[in-house]
Amino acid sequence: MRVLCGREERRSAPNGTETPFSTERIGNGMSEKAIQDYYPDDIAVCFGCGRHNQSGLAIRTYWDGNEGTCRFAPKDEHLAYPGVIYGGLIACLVDCHSIGTAVAAAHHSEGRELGSEPLILFFTARLEIDYRAPTPTGTELVLRASVEEVTPRKSVVTCTVHAGDILCAESRIVAVRKRD
Amino acid sequence: MRVLCGREERRSAPNGTETPFSTERIGNGMSEKAIQDYYPDDIAVCFGCGRHNQSGLAIRTYWDGNEGTCRFAPKDEHLAYPGVIYGGLIACLVDCHSIGTAVAAAHHSEGRELGSEPLILFFTARLEIDYRAPTPTGTELVLRASVEEVTPRKSVVTCTVHAGDILCAESRIVAVRKRD
Repeated sequence: MRVLCGREERRSAPNGTETPFSTERIGNGMSEKAIQDYYPDDIAVCFGCGRHNQSGLAIRTYWDGNEGTCRFAPKDEHLAYPGVIYGGLIACLVDCHSIGTAVAAAHHSEGRELGSEPLILFFTARLEIDYRAPTPTGTELVLRASVEEVTPRKSVVTCTVHAGDILCAESRIVAVRKRD
Repeated sequence: MRVLCGREERRSAPNGTETPFSTERIGNGMSEKAIQDYYPDDIAVCFGCGRHNQSGLAIRTYWDGNEGTCRFAPKDEHLAYPGVIYGGLIACLVDCHSIGTAVAAAHHSEGRELGSEPLILFFTARLEIDYRAPTPTGTELVLRASVEEVTPRKSVVTCTVHAGDILCAESRIVAVRKRD
């Protein structure tokens, strides 16, 4: 699968194997494995972030115990105008990354391991984006998301999108928890 | 270029040529030519709606004098989960379609022909989407957008997304007018 985001930055365990995500590790730094890599095989087909979608964007969220980070290198075709990245792509990025962050935070707050069953899942009920500046081409985008509000039924996740020092967009997503 | 949306429904003039968009035609029914086909060649590279983007979605807006309509057939990869269309794709559709509608409405209200120079252009400053129901696969999506507020500097465009009788999403976009 084409991987555009983050995975190349995954840190390997000393023996080269992937290290399981754990609540201990959450507290000690960035997760080794992307949140989306814990999504069950039978649903991991999302165009934005599904590891089984060969044509998708392969968005990946890494969690450090407080916030989720995603790095994404847009492709040449992800334009709005010459030199400016497409706002719809920004919407895709903040959507999947915010949902991934909601999933990680929910497991963290409940002391649950990612990978334990059933995985806590969310879906997007509302998406708001303010485009603060044109997003330039040729620069890796960095998204940082955090959970601002939590109820038993939903989480509100905010996210920023930077290209270098430029704040390109800010978003707020209402993520509804999938009922078990 | 791959065309997924609307163009196959374009009605041709009797001699088979494309008929220029005119204010008279605006008043008499759906435009013959998509709004995006009037965008200048040098900027028509948008991943969502640019006719010169070979990898893009080819979103097309048709205007009937009151509202803009877009029909779009998602591809197999545009999934969120099995059987459900990706919300990020919905964001792309409402973004480009709402901007196209703002462009058409601005020309209409000023008695300007689309294609006359300089074309009135907008960009998205804010995007809000409420996802009302899961968008099912296997159904052409129909978007209808209208301009709710206009100031010299911006237009507010609302849009619905239906799959058959299902209201899948509602959106509101603040479109800022590009300065001449």
